[in-house]
Amino acid sequence: MALLVEKTSSGREYKIKDMSQADFGRLEIELAEVEMPGLMACRAECGPSQPLKGACITGSLHMTIQTAVLIETLTSLGASVRWCSCNIFSTQDHAAAAIARDSASVFAWKGETLQEYWWCTERALDWGPGGGPDLIVDDGGDATLLIHEGVKAEEEYEKAGKLPDPASTDNAEFQIVLRIIRDGLKANGTLLFPAINVNDSVTKSKFDNLYGCRYSLPDGLMRATDVMIAGKVAVVCGYGDVGKGCAAALRQAGARVIVTEIDPICALQALMEGIPVLTLEDVVSQADIFVTTTGNKDVIMVHHMRKMKNNAIVCNIGHFENEIDMFGLETYPGIERINIKLQTDRWVFPESQTGIIILAEGRLMNLGCGNGHPSFVMSCFFTNQVIAQLELWTERANGKYEKKVYVLPKHLDEKVAALHLGKLGAKLTKLTPEQAAYISVPIEGPYKPAHYRY
Amino acid sequence: MALLVEKTSSGREYKIKDMSQADFGRLEIELAEVEMPGLMACRAECGPSQPLKGACITGSLHMTIQTAVLIETLTSLGASVRWCSCNIFSTQDHAAAAIARDSASVFAWKGETLQEYWWCTERALDWGPGGGPDLIVDDGGDATLLIHEGVKAEEEYEKAGKLPDPASTDNAEFQIVLRIIRDGLKANGTLLFPAINVNDSVTKSKFDNLYGCRYSLPDGLMRATDVMIAGKVAVVCGYGDVGKGCAAALRQAGARVIVTEIDPICALQALMEGIPVLTLEDVVSQADIFVTTTGNKDVIMVHHMRKMKNNAIVCNIGHFENEIDMFGLETYPGIERINIKLQTDRWVFPESQTGIIILAEGRLMNLGCGNGHPSFVMSCFFTNQVIAQLELWTERANGKYEKKVYVLPKHLDEKVAALHLGKLGAKLTKLTPEQAAYISVPIEGPYKPAHYRY
Amino acid sequence: MALLVEKTSSGREYKIKDMSQADFGRLEIELAEVEMPGLMACRAECGPSQPLKGACITGSLHMTIQTAVLIETLTSLGASVRWCSCNIFSTQDHAAAAIARDSASVFAWKGETLQEYWWCTERALDWGPGGGPDLIVDDGGDATLLIHEGVKAEEEYEKAGKLPDPASTDNAEFQIVLRIIRDGLKANGTLLFPAINVNDSVTKSKFDNLYGCRYSLPDGLMRATDVMIAGKVAVVCGYGDVGKGCAAALRQAGARVIVTEIDPICALQALMEGIPVLTLEDVVSQADIFVTTTGNKDVIMVHHMRKMKNNAIVCNIGHFENEIDMFGLETYPGIERINIKLQTDRWVFPESQTGIIILAEGRLMNLGCGNGHPSFVMSCFFTNQVIAQLELWTERANGKYEKKVYVLPKHLDEKVAALHLGKLGAKLTKLTPEQAAYISVPIEGPYKPAHYRY
Amino acid sequence: MALLVEKTSSGREYKIKDMSQADFGRLEIELAEVEMPGLMACRAECGPSQPLKGACITGSLHMTIQTAVLIETLTSLGASVRWCSCNIFSTQDHAAAAIARDSASVFAWKGETLQEYWWCTERALDWGPGGGPDLIVDDGGDATLLIHEGVKAEEEYEKAGKLPDPASTDNAEFQIVLRIIRDGLKANGTLLFPAINVNDSVTKSKFDNLYGCRYSLPDGLMRATDVMIAGKVAVVCGYGDVGKGCAAALRQAGARVIVTEIDPICALQALMEGIPVLTLEDVVSQADIFVTTTGNKDVIMVHHMRKMKNNAIVCNIGHFENEIDMFGLETYPGIERINIKLQTDRWVFPESQTGIIILAEGRLMNLGCGNGHPSFVMSCFFTNQVIAQLELWTERANGKYEKKVYVLPKHLDEKVAALHLGKLGAKLTKLTPEQAAYISVPIEGPYKPAHYRY
Repeated sequence: MALLVEKTSSGREYKIKDMSQADFGRLEIELAEVEMPGLMACRAECGPSQPLKGACITGSLHMTIQTAVLIETLTSLGASVRWCSCNIFSTQDHAAAAIARDSASVFAWKGETLQEYWWCTERALDWGPGGGPDLIVDDGGDATLLIHEGVKAEEEYEKAGKLPDPASTDNAEFQIVLRIIRDGLKANGTLLFPAINVNDSVTKSKFDNLYGCRYSLPDGLMRATDVMIAGKVAVVCGYGDVGKGCAAALRQAGARVIVTEIDPICALQALMEGIPVLTLEDVVSQADIFVTTTGNKDVIMVHHMRKMKNNAIVCNIGHFENEIDMFGLETYPGIERINIKLQTDRWVFPESQTGIIILAEGRLMNLGCGNGHPSFVMSCFFTNQVIAQLELWTERANGKYEKKVYVLPKHLDEKVAALHLGKLGAKLTKLTPEQAAYISVPIEGPYKPAHYRY
Repeated sequence: MALLVEKTSSGREYKIKDMSQADFGRLEIELAEVEMPGLMACRAECGPSQPLKGACITGSLHMTIQTAVLIETLTSLGASVRWCSCNIFSTQDHAAAAIARDSASVFAWKGETLQEYWWCTERALDWGPGGGPDLIVDDGGDATLLIHEGVKAEEEYEKAGKLPDPASTDNAEFQIVLRIIRDGLKANGTLLFPAINVNDSVTKSKFDNLYGCRYSLPDGLMRATDVMIAGKVAVVCGYGDVGKGCAAALRQAGARVIVTEIDPICALQALMEGIPVLTLEDVVSQADIFVTTTGNKDVIMVHHMRKMKNNAIVCNIGHFENEIDMFGLETYPGIERINIKLQTDRWVFPESQTGIIILAEGRLMNLGCGNGHPSFVMSCFFTNQVIAQLELWTERANGKYEKKVYVLPKHLDEKVAALHLGKLGAKLTKLTPEQAAYISVPIEGPYKPAHYRY
Repeated sequence: MALLVEKTSSGREYKIKDMSQADFGRLEIELAEVEMPGLMACRAECGPSQPLKGACITGSLHMTIQTAVLIETLTSLGASVRWCSCNIFSTQDHAAAAIARDSASVFAWKGETLQEYWWCTERALDWGPGGGPDLIVDDGGDATLLIHEGVKAEEEYEKAGKLPDPASTDNAEFQIVLRIIRDGLKANGTLLFPAINVNDSVTKSKFDNLYGCRYSLPDGLMRATDVMIAGKVAVVCGYGDVGKGCAAALRQAGARVIVTEIDPICALQALMEGIPVLTLEDVVSQADIFVTTTGNKDVIMVHHMRKMKNNAIVCNIGHFENEIDMFGLETYPGIERINIKLQTDRWVFPESQTGIIILAEGRLMNLGCGNGHPSFVMSCFFTNQVIAQLELWTERANGKYEKKVYVLPKHLDEKVAALHLGKLGAKLTKLTPEQAAYISVPIEGPYKPAHYRY
Repeated sequence: MALLVEKTSSGREYKIKDMSQADFGRLEIELAEVEMPGLMACRAECGPSQPLKGACITGSLHMTIQTAVLIETLTSLGASVRWCSCNIFSTQDHAAAAIARDSASVFAWKGETLQEYWWCTERALDWGPGGGPDLIVDDGGDATLLIHEGVKAEEEYEKAGKLPDPASTDNAEFQIVLRIIRDGLKANGTLLFPAINVNDSVTKSKFDNLYGCRYSLPDGLMRATDVMIAGKVAVVCGYGDVGKGCAAALRQAGARVIVTEIDPICALQALMEGIPVLTLEDVVSQADIFVTTTGNKDVIMVHHMRKMKNNAIVCNIGHFENEIDMFGLETYPGIERINIKLQTDRWVFPESQTGIIILAEGRLMNLGCGNGHPSFVMSCFFTNQVIAQLELWTERANGKYEKKVYVLPKHLDEKVAALHLGKLGAKLTKLTPEQAAYISVPIEGPYKPAHYRY
């Protein structure tokens, strides 16, 4: 694709795949808006006062329909926005088209080359002579780091003959790069502006991991395999928030769930819910479904997979594809890979002629086999983003925030939750002054100490 | 398509769409076999003795991958089989190809015309000079009736200028025709051979309705809308077995479920599970998801839909599309229908400009938006079929069964269940003679009286 | 106690333990009334028309607070009532006092001798010169049989030197006697009047067994042992309605539940709920709690109990105490019985010095260790009784009922349910005439065929 | 009771009610040991090395059977122990007898006067000339404060003519006193020795609150009222850990649960579980059961109670009895209090003649109407205590801990959990060195950062 910036009739820059998909994108954006009450509440509450007026915001985040609702929330609060995707495959072209036509500068399309990716990123950061963005929106802070260190990283890696591959946030090597960069930043404190990391906010971490995966695990399983979950034995490796969501979903669908854990506290939690805790070795030959949720590597190895029942399903919803020993599987002597359909493969061991079903090539199965988290869950995450931007922008002049990474303050975390209650018909109880004094919290919150576990 | 019978190199007749898909069909058949233990157990147990040797079986049932496993179970027990589909749209062409190439005469393809449909049906019934089939396999007895009354029905309807439309078992008019035929048959007793109706067996009715829908409702919802079910208010109209399965699935996914019921016993069951029972009028403006499961008509009318929240989802998993007042919706003055994607439409009311989402045009949403029941559930149904055919064929000479419709005997119903236990690792307890005598049942069952409710 | 009939100031006969407890009884009766909406609805609906006016009703049923609400429902509908208990231990003396003082003739106290029991039964049946009762209320028909055959049974057993022991409906020998009598009656058809057996009505069988035991099993366990259920392995022997209720309660409390079953259909139901089905031998040494629900005998034998973990809890909520091999336990050489508290014993095996905890000496643990079913569940059962009596009395003159045992008609079963909905805030949907015609049921019900499984 | 110290034959001091109950106490202690695997694991693991040898430990904690297992764990690790109760009513005399006879110096009996209470506390602290205890075990640190400030507090309050009333940890005034003392201590740092507050450890806070109350709420409800929970509407005020446990228990028993909340995050969590969040005003007239879990005051006021349904049940499982407006109730003009049984009262409003049922006079209903938390939950708490004492004692010489209050270190929190896994048959997975390095945790833990929410 010729890397030339195009312009709308009003002069706004963009580079997307196909502007004719803008109507379709708009239709899906309108549906998503109804499921993203936090963002819509931000518009309703703050839109009139235009609190982001004057702010130039660069975003680097999957350019999807849901992100489109985020972008238009930012613009409805007064911001100017330029956007690129943080992944060469994740752009939904109809979403990009609708935004480019109606709301903001977008430089993103599905299937970018690495060169195109970096060009898009630079365009999103290019606010013209004299300046970069005032604020940056990204996923987990990686893009912020990337932007800071982009040139340096590029230089370093060009020496090694390749660019960093942003093809996937699943990519382990690149993550390691980012971790190195992050550690470096921590050490030398070169952050160019204040940032709020929303990843540890309750309304991000708990909701994405627990409720998001409780939804998207069975969704992915059913789309990929049409397998009856009821009656099956399912092993969930790891009982953190993701594992808790997966185990809940599988039990409710009628599976007998077994958990593996390294952490005795999480193990005891599983037991208190009636879930046995065993090692993979104990159950590998009896289970029908295996799900890794650990964030660790080498959780299910090829020597485990050899012992599994015929057509056992093996999938990962944790982090990187190295939770499952895909390398060991691919290099197993005589193994046969039978592609059943997109993202679903049967690997047949030569000695037993029994096969196992691997979903999404070991990558995140809820993204690979389904549509990931639903809009409502994304609304929690994105509302965190909007509120963080609002906070940073509003407080930019008064020195409240130094050039460091902050955790979203508890009262804003609570606000994100509050903005999602109305859609679900909920009504909060209000403390009286006497009650607030009695438990020593402000009437308007925050209501819990920082270490509260929810 | 030219309606000419083709032949395999071995001389077996068939007419299908594309023989080149046979390998793909075989692959999926092999996967399904692992999930259909009842059928595979029949093969293992009875295959060696070839109990269906000599039996000519005609089948009229959706020609899917799962049906392919059924057909090959019948042939592995010694039967000769000719097959057509009972629905002009439901054939999976790769399944038909694999069967035609490897196992049985198939006359079926996706998208038959009515003329083609009847030609296929006739081919499936045509066992050459001097005879029809010895046994018939169909879904719920409709095909049996159809075959009996086919010519007569054709004649009657040709007078009215059209053939009966077997496009869908959802089609209300055709069902009425079948009901009339059935009532006629009951009256004049013209059944040409004994039949066993497996529809009321526990392993069919409870399993299809309760466990099948518990699986396929959320599957259809998620595929069609990607909606977050947690936090939503869902109304389930009807709390029979289908409603119980749907309500369970929705609650477990985190919805607040409300049931509507006409039957006070079912209503009290809902209440004992913590589910409120209200009328549709009480909740129509507060709910997010509406599911009809009643088997009745006019359950959700256009005057209800007018009052719903914007983007409320309305779908049917009960029986015919007339559970939802699609006619009222289509003829509502000024209404706008926006097709979002296949099987998902948004209907916008002119006065409010709010829209509702209708799935599968009001037809069965688990079939329209998902893949229906999973193989394991179908295995229960199909094993009923195989066992019924075995019983009829084995007893054909001794007058045990007259030319009437029988219910599957309890001991065979229990056998179907038993054949599905091994796959799930279950072990039954065996009565001692003393115990059997004490509770007055045979050691080998049946264990329950006919009226037992499970 | 001197067996002399006493009289209230109004001349009503009675024989109870302590009239001074009447006020306390009245207080508890008033509380129970609120939880027994079916009975109270009968009073509200039928009281004014006095439909039982003139009916002389004898009851033989545990003289408890809940039974008091039943008795006063009968009297409020116009009946005259005489009552005895069907168990020498089950009378609540304060309930008997309140009824005797305020409403009906009662002959019952806690701890009757057998002689006293028969005297009470005779008093309850003695309506003066020229007649017995018009109607009889009993539990499961046993009392009816007893009354019919009382003299004969007495004679037969006196020859053997003892009376039938009605000490407990748990008593196996006496049950066998009753079964013999029942079989005899079936054979020679000597029933003296029509009777309706309410035991197979849905609102009795499903509600008592499923919801009643789901409540009373954990209640009994917690009262007897204070044991943490979460985290434990619990074996439920039998997965009928009682077993389903018990398994649900234990899972919800956080136990890992395992079911044993003889019936493959019930076994498959357990599996579909995610519950493994194994034999007792498989799990006897790993489980913490064992519950028998079978209605059979010899379910847990002493050779099982020997292998159990130290302080495993063994209890029965099925039928008779012979579900657990109490005889084998008691006669085990060298075994030591340590009474911990009322209804809770630890039995220590000499060879291992490990002990097991037996609840209620193997008898029904929900009655022995708790207070049995709650009022609301009893209200369903008792409303069945009232409605059955009303039906028999109303139709007594027109020959609708012959001198046989009938099942409660479906429309009355539905009515019982309907009378319990208001208390729970439920609203039923009403069929339109068109809908009723479409599904071929009367608008007012009954809505389901007799074989419907709910 | 004459306040004279008695001595066993071996010379150990004690003062208890009745030494003849020692055998009964021993029996119950042995049962509890099986349910307290963490404590028993401490004995098995550490007993041989006698790590507490030489430590003089004073305990001030309810002298119950479960505490007896704690005391004997401390003595089995080598400690010398002197014990008093922290509540004048909470001693179980058979437990005290068994301990006094067999293991440690106990000064406690049920129903102490305040003078006796302080005498007992002094005896427990009196280790003879030259010294107090080396370590102190108490509940939540209150006793530690009390001991520090005892004399001062006594002096202050004697001026006001009364002693601090330790009758109940529920007592709000005394808690305020303790809070004042605590705040004072914080300010002037006069702690006499290091202390570890185990209250915020996961294995204490989450387990006590969530799993403990999930058990003890329905237990208390059923013991107090025998009410059928299924079908009822239950309002849970507060959705913290206690509220989550209560809501889970009530839903699982078949209630329709409604939550009230002030905190939007907790509210959103409730919604994600399918539980509506409303205000008390919205639902006060429709619900059957009300449970306060807030830790706040004035949650259910008399103006709420006036509007409740007849026989609505109102109870508190949160903190102090002032969650419910008992004062408003008691002083309501014309109100009538009817005591139904111990801890269960019906309060009848004069204008409506409807009554509500108050459990445990508004105090903690799980303690008042049931037996509180089961042994297994207490084992988690007490194992925290033992491990904290071990840590303090082992590290006493090396200056690791200053004279401050510490939180139990994460690795010890994890150890407490680990010690409870074996009893439940769980097996942990072990990290490989490579895995540990990959996620940057030690192989042996701790596995989670301090802020991890579980």
